[in-house]
Amino acid sequence: MAFKIGLLGLGTVGTGTAQILLDSTGRHPLLQEIEIHRVGVRSPNKPRAVKLPPERLTTDLEAIVTDPDIDIIVEVLGGLEPARSLILKAISHGKHIVTANKAVIARYGAEIFTAAEEKGVYVLLEAAVGGGIPVIEPLKLSLGVNRINSVIGIVNGTTNYILTRMQTEGGEFADILADAQKLGYAEADPTADVDGLDAADKIAILASIAFAGRIKLSDVHCEGIRQVSAADIAYAQKLGFVIKLLAVAKREEPVPTFPTDSDMLQMRVHPTLVPQIHPLASINGVYNAILVEGEPIGQVMFFGPGAGSGPTASAVVSDIMNIAAVLKTAGESHRLHSLLSCVHQHYCAIAPMSELVTRFYARFLTKDSPGVIGHLGTSFGKHHVSLESVVQTGFRGDLAEIVVVTHDVREGNFRHALEEIRALDAVDSIPSILRVL
Amino acid sequence: MAFKIGLLGLGTVGTGTAQILLDSTGRHPLLQEIEIHRVGVRSPNKPRAVKLPPERLTTDLEAIVTDPDIDIIVEVLGGLEPARSLILKAISHGKHIVTANKAVIARYGAEIFTAAEEKGVYVLLEAAVGGGIPVIEPLKLSLGVNRINSVIGIVNGTTNYILTRMQTEGGEFADILADAQKLGYAEADPTADVDGLDAADKIAILASIAFAGRIKLSDVHCEGIRQVSAADIAYAQKLGFVIKLLAVAKREEPVPTFPTDSDMLQMRVHPTLVPQIHPLASINGVYNAILVEGEPIGQVMFFGPGAGSGPTASAVVSDIMNIAAVLKTAGESHRLHSLLSCVHQHYCAIAPMSELVTRFYARFLTKDSPGVIGHLGTSFGKHHVSLESVVQTGFRGDLAEIVVVTHDVREGNFRHALEEIRALDAVDSIPSILRVL
Repeated sequence: MAFKIGLLGLGTVGTGTAQILLDSTGRHPLLQEIEIHRVGVRSPNKPRAVKLPPERLTTDLEAIVTDPDIDIIVEVLGGLEPARSLILKAISHGKHIVTANKAVIARYGAEIFTAAEEKGVYVLLEAAVGGGIPVIEPLKLSLGVNRINSVIGIVNGTTNYILTRMQTEGGEFADILADAQKLGYAEADPTADVDGLDAADKIAILASIAFAGRIKLSDVHCEGIRQVSAADIAYAQKLGFVIKLLAVAKREEPVPTFPTDSDMLQMRVHPTLVPQIHPLASINGVYNAILVEGEPIGQVMFFGPGAGSGPTASAVVSDIMNIAAVLKTAGESHRLHSLLSCVHQHYCAIAPMSELVTRFYARFLTKDSPGVIGHLGTSFGKHHVSLESVVQTGFRGDLAEIVVVTHDVREGNFRHALEEIRALDAVDSIPSILRVL
Repeated sequence: MAFKIGLLGLGTVGTGTAQILLDSTGRHPLLQEIEIHRVGVRSPNKPRAVKLPPERLTTDLEAIVTDPDIDIIVEVLGGLEPARSLILKAISHGKHIVTANKAVIARYGAEIFTAAEEKGVYVLLEAAVGGGIPVIEPLKLSLGVNRINSVIGIVNGTTNYILTRMQTEGGEFADILADAQKLGYAEADPTADVDGLDAADKIAILASIAFAGRIKLSDVHCEGIRQVSAADIAYAQKLGFVIKLLAVAKREEPVPTFPTDSDMLQMRVHPTLVPQIHPLASINGVYNAILVEGEPIGQVMFFGPGAGSGPTASAVVSDIMNIAAVLKTAGESHRLHSLLSCVHQHYCAIAPMSELVTRFYARFLTKDSPGVIGHLGTSFGKHHVSLESVVQTGFRGDLAEIVVVTHDVREGNFRHALEEIRALDAVDSIPSILRVL
């Protein structure tokens, strides 16, 4: 029995996928039972890095997802439409789905997984998060016995590349972004990456698997790295931290002084001061890493290339193989594998950011008047914000620069204190407010 | 349908396993279909950290592995016998096996997997390597499409703990070993850990999966960390390295000047100078990490707790769940899942260490006579050993201390050069010879 693939898209990831499938020597023998039946492309006559019989290429994507010979549809088109509609139509025709499309899954996962469950088909998406890094499948198959407490990831290679260069070179965000664009590490329109939207898609997907519940993308608090300055990176380093864009999904811990519902999740993407000795601190450049913490496993981390044709194709083809292996194991009497399928229907409750308990880093520019640190301290104290360190770091023009790191505080209290501080005569501005891991 | 487990052993890992199985709230719902049917122990009346109905405990392990009601035998006894015989008997009675026993699998894997294939049962062993870290299953299910080039692991927590403390405290091996024994991080008889034998078992298992071939344990070159001194750690640090006990399984690269068969593997465990910026350099304390390099994935790393009741039990129970899920998916028509089962029969060819091409670090104690560095250089040159750096580091008593780091050299050539150098009048001794990653 051979498994027939309908491949939607022959761009970077599609080409990588076809290359693996056409070159099975030295790989798992099951690969030889998987066959590219049809490939949907926009321009069938374009020169390609991969050799496929021309008659397998078509511009008619609908014909692929409805082709009765095809077992598995591999969607590597990217974007929302026609990807979403094609996936849904393929499911309605009883096809299994492998996709690398984080945007579609993060937005339309509910609709897609509901349809898939009804039709008894798989929707696998290892390639949607962390490129080639095995993380979705380990979460499902190797860590499913755990109660997961948190998933914290560096899941966007572009921002990690920019922050790493800011760290090593001391440059400013805008300059390094421009250079990254020239070098092809950042898109011409960098919004999805630098504003944290791509990371938000990915953490929503990871959380839905780790916490077995659906996540509304609009519930994910999202801040990008545009506000991170060379000054902050330098101060962070002095204080023993590096700045990383973290995507965090975390079960709220009941904190005695701020009781919260422990079934609530924090869902947030923001630049974060990470202690230099933390495992995520040493993840540099375009690499991704996902740290999972659970009971009884403790902390495990998955590290690797977060993007790229080959790595992402590795994830796509491993999903194809996993479906093929399960179908082969079961034969005609196949019932959905309960660890590979996603059947949860409820939405996770997300805690408001004002309830978050975290440490903060803030940088203030103040007039050089006596007692300004006293004023800051008074305002923080009034709002129950206790300070771990206050450093007057020097002068920027006429203004004094003061950096503050708090102990764990309720975000709402910290924000109220900042409002009050912002109104102080002695305070010129608050250029940076960052959370600390 | 409930799956009935026969648990052999109720020590640390067995207790952790039972605790997860008896406390399924908040974990994957499939866990509720798994039932501890019988538990084999030495002393049924001993007080236990886990509450099990007394009638389920027995000292008759044979009765468990032959019990027709039991679907899956979980072997967490450790040691070679009776573990090996019980596993084989369980297989002959058609039971699936989950084991945490690296020693048995590394020595008797061939016999066990041959028997398992004949009977159509699974033998899963995630817990045998890296404690709770998902690595065996990702290698099988997520990375199987890759051609693996290397697996390099820090897979022994005890030695990593000792080396980390030597690094941070500057102490000598013997003192820190003694302290580690007091603190329970090292066994009273530390041989298996500090001489690299435990790591050799684990890399043999990892390699057999990554390279889909059997490995003879006696083919694994094994050096422990007893020879690593505080002086070496300090010099390594100055040169930009940390010293780690690495377990390496690597496909030989055809090197133009030293042609080798590219189907040969290197299999070796030894203390190694790791560049400080390498992902494995920052793995400290009892943590483990396994770095896998393949085509097209590139490098991925799996990091986490390499031992402990909870983490190891997480791996054991995830294996149980995976078997249960596959059996449920297939029902009566179940055929072995081709990614989960191990069917390869051939033995991998292992390259002799003399053919290894690597960099070396060596420390020499010499008489303080003029021209000694010249003599060293001449001997190395004669044997085609080119030097990256030569540092005269100072004096130890009357003797001068010279540290050398080579470029990539054939190990055989390097050893010949050392023989010649050892015979030089000016050379007192060569206290350390370490490989460099």
